[in-house]
Amino acid sequence: MEIFQVVGSLVCTQRHPGMNNLPLRVLKDRKGKFAVAVDTIGSREGNWIFTISGSAARLALDDKKILTDLTIGGVIESWE
Amino acid sequence: MEIFQVVGSLVCTQRHPGMNNLPLRVLKDRKGKFAVAVDTIGSREGNWIFTISGSAARLALDDKKILTDLTIGGVIESWE
Amino acid sequence: MEIFQVVGSLVCTQRHPGMNNLPLRVLKDRKGKFAVAVDTIGSREGNWIFTISGSAARLALDDKKILTDLTIGGVIESWE
Amino acid sequence: MEIFQVVGSLVCTQRHPGMNNLPLRVLKDRKGKFAVAVDTIGSREGNWIFTISGSAARLALDDKKILTDLTIGGVIESWE
Amino acid sequence: MEIFQVVGSLVCTQRHPGMNNLPLRVLKDRKGKFAVAVDTIGSREGNWIFTISGSAARLALDDKKILTDLTIGGVIESWE
Repeated sequence: MEIFQVVGSLVCTQRHPGMNNLPLRVLKDRKGKFAVAVDTIGSREGNWIFTISGSAARLALDDKKILTDLTIGGVIESWE
Repeated sequence: MEIFQVVGSLVCTQRHPGMNNLPLRVLKDRKGKFAVAVDTIGSREGNWIFTISGSAARLALDDKKILTDLTIGGVIESWE
Repeated sequence: MEIFQVVGSLVCTQRHPGMNNLPLRVLKDRKGKFAVAVDTIGSREGNWIFTISGSAARLALDDKKILTDLTIGGVIESWE
Repeated sequence: MEIFQVVGSLVCTQRHPGMNNLPLRVLKDRKGKFAVAVDTIGSREGNWIFTISGSAARLALDDKKILTDLTIGGVIESWE
Repeated sequence: MEIFQVVGSLVCTQRHPGMNNLPLRVLKDRKGKFAVAVDTIGSREGNWIFTISGSAARLALDDKKILTDLTIGGVIESWE
């Protein structure tokens, strides 16, 4: 899993039907790398979150046919 | 998912039969990294798009036997 | 597999139900890259460990429905 | 998919039996990163090609038991 | 597949039972990136080898339950 900060929500003019209407978040890591993830837990701009990639990202959704390769796994409070 | 800009269409002299005749787009991200993706939604040069990778890229196609590892998931309008 | 050092445990305010209550470790490699992994072997802060990624990360857990893409595979003593 | 140039053929003193005798090409991308791919379309040194990774790389071969994670998908003529 | 040089064998104080007692090699590529791979072909320190990643890494082992994501595919003699 990787650590990112949520920087916003993605608005699309066209979208593959397999993406459904799931909320998509734009993420940025500490080195400035961007990514896009499906959000099922209600993260907000500024939150630090961790992501689940690959086939596990699909298993995280109720509908396994959704075409994601990255899903938000949790909102980080801190690490000890 | 990752964010790229469409820079053109790919023309091949030889092509693996498992790629069919699907349109292939050449993509470039903000750091100058190139990638090639199957396009099923009709993206155009200059569009910013997001991509779906891995086995999900194949599930995005009507014919699951197509040998892609990267498919365009949507055209980005903006992020909030 | 990749080599990381354990830098702490991850505390979340929200967590995808598919992550269960499994211990999550924050990891850092020699180049300063961070990652998060499920720990089933009891690694401790400061330990150098190696990680198993992808679908194998899920197979490493008793419950294959856990949504991990990275699991700690062992604590490194040294290499010859 | 990714873009590489073919720089040569790989000669091995030992080879995992699951690799069979398939031709292996050494590839180099624009940033100098090397990779090794199975070639089923007869690419030649100097060709610019694109690669298919992951489980799709195996599906590209007649024998699905071949242990590749990267297969050449086509020879690039140009992009528009 | 990727190209690495074998720099040693990995010794662990704790090991996930799913890793069995298979020999693990520490690898280093030309840019100084480290990785750990299962070795089934008897590579030695100093050898240049190529690796198979992902689910193919597991298929390379007689026991498909072994939790590897990287297996050595062959020892490189040269490339032409």
